[in-house]
Amino acid sequence: MQSGQIRLNKVTKEWVIYAPSRRKRPQDFQQKSHNKQTSGILSRDCPFCPGNEHKAERIFLEMPSRHHKGWQTRVVLNKFPALTPDEDRERSKEGIYLMMPGYGQHEVIIESPDHHQDLATMPIEDVETVIETYHKRYVTLMQAHKNMMAIIFRNHGMKAGASLSHPHSQMIVTGMVPQNIRVREQEAQRYYDQWQRCVYCDILEFEQHHRRRVIAENESFLAFIPFAADVPFETWIMPKEHEADFGSISAIEKSHFALILKNVLTRLYDKLSDPDYNYVINTAARYKAEEPQIHWYCQISPRLTTPAGFELGSGISINPSLPEIDADFLNS
Amino acid sequence: MQSGQIRLNKVTKEWVIYAPSRRKRPQDFQQKSHNKQTSGILSRDCPFCPGNEHKAERIFLEMPSRHHKGWQTRVVLNKFPALTPDEDRERSKEGIYLMMPGYGQHEVIIESPDHHQDLATMPIEDVETVIETYHKRYVTLMQAHKNMMAIIFRNHGMKAGASLSHPHSQMIVTGMVPQNIRVREQEAQRYYDQWQRCVYCDILEFEQHHRRRVIAENESFLAFIPFAADVPFETWIMPKEHEADFGSISAIEKSHFALILKNVLTRLYDKLSDPDYNYVINTAARYKAEEPQIHWYCQISPRLTTPAGFELGSGISINPSLPEIDADFLNS
Repeated sequence: MQSGQIRLNKVTKEWVIYAPSRRKRPQDFQQKSHNKQTSGILSRDCPFCPGNEHKAERIFLEMPSRHHKGWQTRVVLNKFPALTPDEDRERSKEGIYLMMPGYGQHEVIIESPDHHQDLATMPIEDVETVIETYHKRYVTLMQAHKNMMAIIFRNHGMKAGASLSHPHSQMIVTGMVPQNIRVREQEAQRYYDQWQRCVYCDILEFEQHHRRRVIAENESFLAFIPFAADVPFETWIMPKEHEADFGSISAIEKSHFALILKNVLTRLYDKLSDPDYNYVINTAARYKAEEPQIHWYCQISPRLTTPAGFELGSGISINPSLPEIDADFLNS
Repeated sequence: MQSGQIRLNKVTKEWVIYAPSRRKRPQDFQQKSHNKQTSGILSRDCPFCPGNEHKAERIFLEMPSRHHKGWQTRVVLNKFPALTPDEDRERSKEGIYLMMPGYGQHEVIIESPDHHQDLATMPIEDVETVIETYHKRYVTLMQAHKNMMAIIFRNHGMKAGASLSHPHSQMIVTGMVPQNIRVREQEAQRYYDQWQRCVYCDILEFEQHHRRRVIAENESFLAFIPFAADVPFETWIMPKEHEADFGSISAIEKSHFALILKNVLTRLYDKLSDPDYNYVINTAARYKAEEPQIHWYCQISPRLTTPAGFELGSGISINPSLPEIDADFLNS
């Protein structure tokens, strides 16, 4: 097998992953072949459905269902991993450039044995089990000191990059910290040095009091559309207690997180007719897990608009919808 | 008319544009209405076709054709401008947040009177006229000291965010410098402080000598796939002479740029069956136009893959194709 590579963009200092298992031949990108339907796999062929266990490369964890026999969630190796744990992390030069092997881990969290289930519509206890599963794998994987970062994310729908419709999330663990995360950390550090406060805590407090963009709230979490949302209906779910690391979430917080996540996703499902979306849990990198200026949160970004050349060149989004109007609509 | 707003993301320090002319009602985002075909407008209804001049809001410039009577390129006001010159640039507070009015300019460069023409297939003299037009408007707009940045870009195809198929590019002028551009400037500055060299010049020299990823070359430009390309077939076209500002391009360079741009676009068109793509001219912001460490270049990014949750959370791309293999394919 060819080995994986991670290359450093010399200009932006951001890494790019080249995974051998995901490699395509150039002719696969020709428009015609590219337009083939990749979704809509029948449940009998679905590698995540019960009965197709032999198709899973490796099972890392199973959590039992609270109301039927058998598993509710199952964590398996991604069949086409972006990163693999067999590689090392040693950086090497390629002429004037830097690169390293594709070290990391790429897992799939199957959220239900039912092919047609979805987080927005499944019973709340099942969503709780999903969050439990995230947490358990996160904590396990972050025990290894060479794992610098874990990104938990969910791609829902083809426009959001999902290739299988069976409900699932993913976790990718990396052996380095992305430049993008470092820039955010540095901004938070600068804010803290000035005000001795966490910028996320200040945002949370303001939104909670102002209430203009709040979507949902419970004892432990606030869900709101951020003041400068990049895309229509972008929503942040933030723990009320200052907490840098998703790994340090408490038992009661896990259950409150499940509640508010389901609430927001159901609202999007009902009001926007099941839009495609990505969500990601933004959390602290290793060695930043105790920092007073970093705060984990879940960011949900519906895929209703298409970023184009201006966004590519400037990094600035053009959002055709005002956050306050989006909040009113979801609350109506 | 409602006024435009630009809001600062307090966490990333990046700006987001909320343009009143582009605003949609929340229900317009419901999946069903969203899936409506927005492209494929008949040429008789096309606002960019000759005979429909009355549909243009305002014409800023026309350049004559070199082989037929009438105009070859025409620059008009974008009917749904992201930014407008009537606003001021004064920043204000909204609670704990920063915002400013939507000052700027948003123009469309119609590249040909022929609805069915395209940069990849049009005569080279017409491509030269397009580059001339970019340059003329760029220089004119950057005369105003409050214009901090001009982004010239082209969206080709629906996946690249184009809503009209008549061949056109766009230019957006902003009254501030995006954080994304500042981060790149700072990295280039750091490199220059260490090596007293422009990082882009070093990349160019290496690629020109190494030749592993070169797609095309002429007296003034090199086109290559970058070592850490974010997406399959991403291509950079870079002037060989150090030049921070697109505005300082010489007459002969303009003609060489047209040649190499057409060459690369034709190669993509032929080898990948006319893929959707964005290109953008990355150039120095005002007050950086003379800097020894900044270098303008044109970045072409085909839209063959879908960024998903991992990219959103980490900023890292997963590229399913190796730059060297892409280069071989385009050169075969």
